[in-house]
Amino acid sequence: MKTGWCWRKDESVNNFKTTVGLLGCGHVGAGVARMLLVDRNFIREKMGWPLELLKIAVRNPAASRPFDFPVDLFTTDPYEIVGNKDIQVVAELIGGIELTRELVLAALRSGQHVVTANKALLAHHGREIFAVAAKNKVEVMFEAAVAGGIPIIRVMKEGLSANRIRHLFGILNGTSNYILTRMSREGLDFKTALEEAQQIGYAESDPTLDVEGQDAAHKLILLTALAYGTLPDLNNIHIEGITALTPEDIEFARELGYVVKLLAISARDETDGRLEVRLHPAMLPKTHLLAEVCGSTNAVLVSGHAVGDILLNGAGAGMMPTASSVLGDLMEVARTSRQGSAPRVPSLGWFTLNDEIPRSMSETRTTYYLRFTVADRPGVLAAIASLFAEYGISLAQVIQKSAVDSHSVPLVILTHLAQERDLKAALKVVDKLPAVTAPTRLIRVETRL
Amino acid sequence: MKTGWCWRKDESVNNFKTTVGLLGCGHVGAGVARMLLVDRNFIREKMGWPLELLKIAVRNPAASRPFDFPVDLFTTDPYEIVGNKDIQVVAELIGGIELTRELVLAALRSGQHVVTANKALLAHHGREIFAVAAKNKVEVMFEAAVAGGIPIIRVMKEGLSANRIRHLFGILNGTSNYILTRMSREGLDFKTALEEAQQIGYAESDPTLDVEGQDAAHKLILLTALAYGTLPDLNNIHIEGITALTPEDIEFARELGYVVKLLAISARDETDGRLEVRLHPAMLPKTHLLAEVCGSTNAVLVSGHAVGDILLNGAGAGMMPTASSVLGDLMEVARTSRQGSAPRVPSLGWFTLNDEIPRSMSETRTTYYLRFTVADRPGVLAAIASLFAEYGISLAQVIQKSAVDSHSVPLVILTHLAQERDLKAALKVVDKLPAVTAPTRLIRVETRL
Repeated sequence: MKTGWCWRKDESVNNFKTTVGLLGCGHVGAGVARMLLVDRNFIREKMGWPLELLKIAVRNPAASRPFDFPVDLFTTDPYEIVGNKDIQVVAELIGGIELTRELVLAALRSGQHVVTANKALLAHHGREIFAVAAKNKVEVMFEAAVAGGIPIIRVMKEGLSANRIRHLFGILNGTSNYILTRMSREGLDFKTALEEAQQIGYAESDPTLDVEGQDAAHKLILLTALAYGTLPDLNNIHIEGITALTPEDIEFARELGYVVKLLAISARDETDGRLEVRLHPAMLPKTHLLAEVCGSTNAVLVSGHAVGDILLNGAGAGMMPTASSVLGDLMEVARTSRQGSAPRVPSLGWFTLNDEIPRSMSETRTTYYLRFTVADRPGVLAAIASLFAEYGISLAQVIQKSAVDSHSVPLVILTHLAQERDLKAALKVVDKLPAVTAPTRLIRVETRL
Repeated sequence: MKTGWCWRKDESVNNFKTTVGLLGCGHVGAGVARMLLVDRNFIREKMGWPLELLKIAVRNPAASRPFDFPVDLFTTDPYEIVGNKDIQVVAELIGGIELTRELVLAALRSGQHVVTANKALLAHHGREIFAVAAKNKVEVMFEAAVAGGIPIIRVMKEGLSANRIRHLFGILNGTSNYILTRMSREGLDFKTALEEAQQIGYAESDPTLDVEGQDAAHKLILLTALAYGTLPDLNNIHIEGITALTPEDIEFARELGYVVKLLAISARDETDGRLEVRLHPAMLPKTHLLAEVCGSTNAVLVSGHAVGDILLNGAGAGMMPTASSVLGDLMEVARTSRQGSAPRVPSLGWFTLNDEIPRSMSETRTTYYLRFTVADRPGVLAAIASLFAEYGISLAQVIQKSAVDSHSVPLVILTHLAQERDLKAALKVVDKLPAVTAPTRLIRVETRL
């Protein structure tokens, strides 16, 4: 019976193996090395041939690591892996941009496939790296670079490949989502929540890349490439982190039926067909599944013209979830390369990428939550409303709150769809009104959910 | 710039095409045909070469269909597609088991790849079909057969391929989930909710396959194959639908903090390593994301040793979501077969399948919700509790409700982990006690969520 199951029983695979070298053995690298060693037999059983870890390049072989590895696996020279004809696949888990760019390009040029978890590298140098890979007919795989263990790259590249993507929303930074969850549930301010996240290891000592939105923006660039066939320049997208959010605004959002998330948005405007790519805090209806993605979890919602809405949810970071994605890529490369040398699907899923540039933020239309701090006297709302009307912005909802102190009171407004340029222009004038006593707070509201 | 993006600019693809024939043009078939025609240029742009629909085999070319198709596409002879050397891929969308088995086997034997949405066919004849495909070095793809538009097959086969699956839970039948959602939210009884589902087209006039669990069980068989490398016989798994559920039990579940779902379970028991595959109503904690999967939506939660929990959520049926999955498979077959003839990954993701047989239901250990209907007099609970103790079943929670009529009262018990055989034996005795006035209701409680 068992032989009847054999996939290719006429083909001997006894001597075949796929060889792997790792660059880096930090957090994720150690997880990948561990899986390659501990789960070796399981992987061999699944694929039919071994995935063999030959070398790990590290700065310091003697450094303390979460697991013990055979010392003879280590080398301090990455070029014992890169360009080594005995190693078919290079897993780049060093991080950073400039050194890794050189190593990755050299590996690709020497005919090695590359698997990487490095979103910053691909967001900055993706154009060059994917082009060199295509020219050399090798794979660049990066499932681990976006949303950790969630296999969103594969889903976009193949599962939903026949879909025209209407929009894609992502919660792509676990640190920010953890902080926002704590601010939302416990009323903490940003600074306190960040300190807490740092204490339990959910935020790094320099949290800038996470809380300022750069990390999520890198991932958004890659998802945009898969969705729309264009790899936008980081300078062409709006990136705004969570550092300016206050517990007051999160509480007002809750009262209005919303939750605030750091949202990555890639969408095609239904009315004019323009591409929108932006990363900023956004209010989502609190009954939506995305709003319930809490803690350090990541999620991506993809809406396609045929499939409708698909939501994926899971661990967005962490050693083993990220290693799971790296291993999935290693096994895919192993299986593909066994059949011949050329990649089956282009790295970003499109035969030819285009050079479409996303619409600038000032041209973007959305709806807004605005919190004005105004003097508690008659006529202020009327003044603001009429000024907004001059700029073509209409109000959907107004909430006048009771005074916070003797002379200022919060005034919360939800607008109808407005263009960012108009809104910002109106705010500039409003904020100069004598009755407005503090800069107005703004959070965009996502109405497509 | 644009040429720099080209995936394989040195390779002319001008004359290459992948040819497709459809068997069937019903609900899903019409959706697939429409996408192949309407989205033709989009697909060509993405892949680099066309996916060309050559023929559609139907019983009656003149039948009314949701879209107009060129009449010359139709044939009444499926063997103008099956075995036709000009057609590389056959999409089987007829449904049914016996005729389609013959057609699919003939297609595979003639070297054609097959894409199918037919879970019943694969659950019944998968062993034979996958073996014939492997022997002939062609693909059998079935993303559309499980959870409609959700790309769970691809995720299991490749994205999470390095994971040992701890357990997998699925809400895999949209009709049942719609009915349960209505019962849960509106307090409807099963019959009324079913009639409502039939009126709005969410349930068929003969709903047996859906509400008795067969349809979800077919899908569960396929997910089990991907998760554990074994394709269990339908007769070896416990299948229980939702027809016996009452609004009372759903309401008690709610009070206890649970939601009742028709749950597909494939799991490896952590304590003894045995495989469990079963499909029955189950109580889930109402705060879990799976519990919030409402209406006709499907969802799958996969827990892997490295990745942790990954949840996928989306449309589990419907013309276009299912067509989206068929098209994803057609594009994947087109891309793979362009590189050579042999499939890259075995159909079920494992180089060799095993013959592991899931543990029988009577050997399974889980926790139970039990609702006894008992005479409203002292000592009844004590009698039941001591009888349960004899069978080694301990009680976790007891709720004595007020009387429903003059002489009977519901008594709700949650047990600790117990073996199904013991529980059923105990219930057999309990139900014969004079104080027990109606058969006891049982719903299993899923504690791994």
